[in-house]
Amino acid sequence: MTLAVRYIAARSLDTATTDNPPPGPGEVELAPAYVGICGTDLHIFHGDMDARVAAPAVIGHEMSGRIVRVGPDVTGWAPGDAVTVMPLRWDDVCPACTAGHRHICQHLDFIGIDSPGAMQQRWTVPATTLIRLPDSLPLDRAALVEPTAVAVHDVGRAGVREGERVVVVGGGPVGILIALVARAAGADVRVAELSAHRRALAEELGLATWDPAVDDVAELVREWTRDAGADVAFEVSGAAGGVNTAIEVLGVRGRLCLVAIHPRPREVNLHRFFWRELTLVGARLYDRSDFEKAVALVADGTVPAERLISKVVPLTEAPAAFEALEGGGDVMKILVDCTDDAQGAAV
Amino acid sequence: MTLAVRYIAARSLDTATTDNPPPGPGEVELAPAYVGICGTDLHIFHGDMDARVAAPAVIGHEMSGRIVRVGPDVTGWAPGDAVTVMPLRWDDVCPACTAGHRHICQHLDFIGIDSPGAMQQRWTVPATTLIRLPDSLPLDRAALVEPTAVAVHDVGRAGVREGERVVVVGGGPVGILIALVARAAGADVRVAELSAHRRALAEELGLATWDPAVDDVAELVREWTRDAGADVAFEVSGAAGGVNTAIEVLGVRGRLCLVAIHPRPREVNLHRFFWRELTLVGARLYDRSDFEKAVALVADGTVPAERLISKVVPLTEAPAAFEALEGGGDVMKILVDCTDDAQGAAV
Ligand SMILES: NC(=O)c1ccc[n+]([C@@H]2O[C@H](COP(=O)([O-])OP(=O)(O)OC[C@H]3O[C@@H](n4cnc5c(N)ncnc54)[C@H](O)[C@@H]3O)[C@@H](O)[C@H]2O)c1
Ligand SMILES: NC(=O)c1ccc[n+]([C@@H]2O[C@H](COP(=O)([O-])OP(=O)(O)OC[C@H]3O[C@@H](n4cnc5c(N)ncnc54)[C@H](O)[C@@H]3O)[C@@H](O)[C@H]2O)c1
Ligand SMILES: [Zn+2]
Ligand SMILES: [Zn+2]
Repeated sequence: MTLAVRYIAARSLDTATTDNPPPGPGEVELAPAYVGICGTDLHIFHGDMDARVAAPAVIGHEMSGRIVRVGPDVTGWAPGDAVTVMPLRWDDVCPACTAGHRHICQHLDFIGIDSPGAMQQRWTVPATTLIRLPDSLPLDRAALVEPTAVAVHDVGRAGVREGERVVVVGGGPVGILIALVARAAGADVRVAELSAHRRALAEELGLATWDPAVDDVAELVREWTRDAGADVAFEVSGAAGGVNTAIEVLGVRGRLCLVAIHPRPREVNLHRFFWRELTLVGARLYDRSDFEKAVALVADGTVPAERLISKVVPLTEAPAAFEALEGGGDVMKILVDCTDDAQGAAV
Repeated sequence: MTLAVRYIAARSLDTATTDNPPPGPGEVELAPAYVGICGTDLHIFHGDMDARVAAPAVIGHEMSGRIVRVGPDVTGWAPGDAVTVMPLRWDDVCPACTAGHRHICQHLDFIGIDSPGAMQQRWTVPATTLIRLPDSLPLDRAALVEPTAVAVHDVGRAGVREGERVVVVGGGPVGILIALVARAAGADVRVAELSAHRRALAEELGLATWDPAVDDVAELVREWTRDAGADVAFEVSGAAGGVNTAIEVLGVRGRLCLVAIHPRPREVNLHRFFWRELTLVGARLYDRSDFEKAVALVADGTVPAERLISKVVPLTEAPAAFEALEGGGDVMKILVDCTDDAQGAAV
């Protein structure tokens, strides 16, 4: 019997004990070590994604862990291997897949949303989703590999080049990771973020920040770039105001990489896209090469993942952590510790 | 004394006689032959551009004509040469210019808006703006070179490749020219256009059309592309509904080239940009290579420019033509005949 955190209905999570069946052909059973709580998990918690999530549902997809059991026909993997999971299953036949864009398969199964996720002591996934972790990489830091892969993908989609001036709008976990990855690509980066706590953390990481509630970000960018405007902006806030900021700061032929999820249409200054010949590039998820690059960036400390971890809680305290995160507060990333040791008397 | 059409104030044009001074150093004096009336001219006529247009102002920038006089220091040009004009003057020092994007100079002088235009019998321009026309090309057709250069630029910005499926939203003069240029690039093209007259003309040119007021364009595109969606959409309608159509029809990694001018912000389904990793590319004006390609396409008949000319009126009738165009009606492109012969008793 092992513990799992389950989404029951809007604003309601529970913990339950489950029995994990042995892995089938091509599958492996993992013991998740750490699972990050991300914005999507919060959307699920709010009940916004009930159309996709079949409750009761185990959620979570930012994880690290070790292999426990290996199913038939799985080669190259053994119990004890440290891994993370690229939580995507595609159909390989739709137009997106046949065009080579399998990560945006038109029938994508996102594991942790569309099928059971990692916030439990045992988790069975297809071996094809495994990404190997170096033994030297602590598993708590490794739980940040998934959002780092998002950042790697986004910086790639935006085509950030050495020496370019980049504005990241929204300094949540994803925004900060994008800023770090863009900096590693040689860019000069600024972060616009509303929360003082998050700005302070960004500054500690050596990232210059602005407060869009106080600063005239567009004017500051004009000064910074001597009227040229930024080369690249990342919209990672999810807010209507963030979209405006990201458009305003761009110079001629600037690229806006759209990372955030905007559930509703936004008023967009299309005239500016015409006038300055701007480009908007949507970015979603990642592919295997993004993940492998992310592992390397976290492992070599280019992305100091440990600095983004605000708190680690055991599985039993995950429901309370969701409620705390919902209230905002001074946090960046909360990890759920799923290791057998951490559960104490609960199991 | 020669005739000129002048913008006086909102909805008011007149014709006046003027005396053109001899061309200065680096300048040439032209005798415009034909000048097209374009959407921008109509915007000026409506009074929407009074901030940029210093009335009384001679407008017009889609033109063909011949050189009359050549100023000091001008080499390579002689009276009688058939030319069109790329109506742009840049400052060569702003960040856009130094980055090599002079056509979107941050202090661009668009001749015909920001400085006097072509709708007159004599017109002085910098020799640097001249584009040579082949003697074999009739000057009425050559008046369509400028909007064809827009289309060439847009098809280039969208990166249209052979075999791609392209939807053009808005089948006005610019949309039809984009459709023709994209077809010449090997694309399979559909045009969505509200006006029955314009759809009929497009069909005569061999372009398949849809009526977005009646047809479910997104559904028709799914059928056409077997659920893949279009590779490229051009938004050339300027309407809010056109933006939606252009987004809806695109498949994974589709590119939306934004050509139309949207004076007000539009509600844009950003979620779709994220979900399908779409790209939006703003496109404005053209550069010299676009113009030279446009001359070739009009000259060799790939763009059958004569088919887009609905009507030709003398200078004295230009004010009435603007009023007729304003009322909509069954027209594509109206040319103003500025030749000395056409003015009859008026001069
Ligand atoms: N593209 C993808 O595949 C992908 C993957 C993961 C997350 N996301 C999305 O990326 C976004 C960011 O994720 P996150 O986990 O960092 O979310 P988050 O909500 O923790 O961070 C967003 C940050 O933006 C800040 N903000 C809000 N309005 C702002 C404004 N006007 N200007 C500047 N900052 C503003 C907030 O203070 C917050 O810190 C979310 O929309 C999430 O859904 C996308
Ligand atoms: N990017 C540039 O440099 C550049 C250059 C020239 C013109 N423009 C702009 O391009 C646009 C088109 O120019 P034009 O001269 O062809 O204008 P136009 O007004 O003659 O043509 C627009 C066409 O769109 C159609 N239309 C309107 N709503 C529609 C909808 N929802 N779906 C489909 N069709 C719809 C109209 O019936 C009309 O035929 C204008 O906005 C113009 O300002 C841009
Ligand atoms: Zn697929
Ligand atoms: Zn310039």
